[in-house]
Amino acid sequence: MERINQIVERIRPLNSDLMGKAQKRLDNLTKPKGSLGLLEEIAKIVVGIKEEPKPLLKRKIILTLAGDHGVVEEGVSLYPQEVTCQMIHNFLGGGAGINALASHVGAEVIVVDMGVNGELKIKSERLKIKKVGYGTRNIAKGPAMSREEAIESILRGIEVFEEEYEKEKIDIVGVGDMGIGNTTSSSCIVACITSSEVLDVTSRGTGIDDEALEKKVEVIKRALDINKPDPEDPIDILSKVGGFEIGGIAGTFLASAANRVPAILDGFISTAGALIAAKLAPSTADYMIASHQSVEKGHKIALSYLGKKPLFDLSMRLGEGTGSAIAMSIVEGACKILNEMATFDEAGVSNLTDDVL
Amino acid sequence: MERINQIVERIRPLNSDLMGKAQKRLDNLTKPKGSLGLLEEIAKIVVGIKEEPKPLLKRKIILTLAGDHGVVEEGVSLYPQEVTCQMIHNFLGGGAGINALASHVGAEVIVVDMGVNGELKIKSERLKIKKVGYGTRNIAKGPAMSREEAIESILRGIEVFEEEYEKEKIDIVGVGDMGIGNTTSSSCIVACITSSEVLDVTSRGTGIDDEALEKKVEVIKRALDINKPDPEDPIDILSKVGGFEIGGIAGTFLASAANRVPAILDGFISTAGALIAAKLAPSTADYMIASHQSVEKGHKIALSYLGKKPLFDLSMRLGEGTGSAIAMSIVEGACKILNEMATFDEAGVSNLTDDVL
Repeated sequence: MERINQIVERIRPLNSDLMGKAQKRLDNLTKPKGSLGLLEEIAKIVVGIKEEPKPLLKRKIILTLAGDHGVVEEGVSLYPQEVTCQMIHNFLGGGAGINALASHVGAEVIVVDMGVNGELKIKSERLKIKKVGYGTRNIAKGPAMSREEAIESILRGIEVFEEEYEKEKIDIVGVGDMGIGNTTSSSCIVACITSSEVLDVTSRGTGIDDEALEKKVEVIKRALDINKPDPEDPIDILSKVGGFEIGGIAGTFLASAANRVPAILDGFISTAGALIAAKLAPSTADYMIASHQSVEKGHKIALSYLGKKPLFDLSMRLGEGTGSAIAMSIVEGACKILNEMATFDEAGVSNLTDDVL
Repeated sequence: MERINQIVERIRPLNSDLMGKAQKRLDNLTKPKGSLGLLEEIAKIVVGIKEEPKPLLKRKIILTLAGDHGVVEEGVSLYPQEVTCQMIHNFLGGGAGINALASHVGAEVIVVDMGVNGELKIKSERLKIKKVGYGTRNIAKGPAMSREEAIESILRGIEVFEEEYEKEKIDIVGVGDMGIGNTTSSSCIVACITSSEVLDVTSRGTGIDDEALEKKVEVIKRALDINKPDPEDPIDILSKVGGFEIGGIAGTFLASAANRVPAILDGFISTAGALIAAKLAPSTADYMIASHQSVEKGHKIALSYLGKKPLFDLSMRLGEGTGSAIAMSIVEGACKILNEMATFDEAGVSNLTDDVL
């Protein structure tokens, strides 16, 4: 825990002084005051995070953290476990949804094996092996992993971010996931941390039918009942009902906050990892920007617990970082408003009298 | 009317055969079926519009049509009328919101003087002069323009699109506006076409206070009462309570549909123009994609009349094409999913058995 605590202690509040200055500039740009709505808010938040009056989002990365889940043996997913490894190959080959969307917005994709059930035979600069284990154990029968493994998964998530950051400064990060069975684990985490009913935080994942959904709800209830995770101890929650990639996701959010890099929440699993991070260090949430509202109903509850309003709702439920890629382009557009627009004076446009302002 | 009717007759239905094929491909891409939500829907619509199985959005343009409104003498806006011309200079100088956002998404901005109250002294390839008049007359006292001028404004909007299209094929167009006072005119149009109460379609425009809003509602009621536009005659509505830029916007939507180019609705004024177009030719609406939900409450009613669901709601209320620029990037991302993602077979990823599918 010591290294996690060291990172947590590095997290500072946003720079409110610079945010105030950004607000003044936004109010002076050639548009009615506040007329770019949330784009103005986002620009201001990025200024406060990065402590730069005109932030440029040069290096944009998507981290896609992958892990397997023993609970798939309960029949909670439509797909077999080997799909996790197969999709990693697909990410590295460039054929997945996240590849199309990340390349569209000019972001790199970095894939992390946090604990898939298999050895990846592929070598790639875009693949990091941070394996904590070969998939978690079945949470319907006992804890997913040991407390030490839970801490290790968070530490390796921190490492993933810091290694990349040291290689070249990161201006914004999106954090996505891959792992057959991981909506089951995420529902457990969200139910536990937000004190929600299992039914209110459980949806169809990859697209299971009514019967399988009923079974999934029962499995999640059983997992919580058998493991009794302590809602006030995020490491306990992660070890009992979490996943290696979810611990890694929590670690990347902690490291991005410690390094003052805005981090974009993707869908349900990414946000479950963010809850673990925010439970370890509440101020981490200040560094997070919500991308979309996923179809998974627990996502809304998790976002609201973090105090986040999603930028859009396109009925997506893929994960991988796809929602955060789209949001990244919107955040970059928001920064360009601050950087590129002219003020009333510069453009020679009549502003309101001081009376009206 | 003859030339308008010729354009209307050229508008054909979307290609449902190709849309069905696109759906099949989408279902075979490496992701759970339907998990990219509205992105998949949008990709399919673009295929149906452009009749290309893998549409590329190479040339993206934003048309920002400008006009002045005599009704500003009633005190319905926070800004003086000269701001319309000043903002055109700002658009051409690159300092406006639409410049920052269009350049961010790789779109050209073309500004059109449909009828501002002044002579623009600036020369630019990016400026088209299609002036129908020097601002409309005050709709609180009588019709905005003659029936001939209303037809002429639509025709010149068609011309704007077709000139650009002939110069180089357009793959997607966003249609925005500039015109101090034009939310007042748009509220009249939306109230009339959708049979809504004035109070339900009137908001604060550039940001007027409660007192001015009350006045604006009264002015709109007066304009409708004095002019009595015929809800079934879009030319009558445009001439009595419309604007030159709104007629131009209607024309660009007609021309984009006739040329099978997807057109993105911007905010309230753009959508008011779209209503005029859809009233002239209902199938025009098939070629429209809604971008955002504006703060102007009449926008929701107008979008719903067109059967459109906005892609996002960022509490924007600027116009110019800013919402359509952000949406354009999302639409392009949707097409890239169709174009760049691998199928299960190509990627060697296990798909569901045919039983489950």
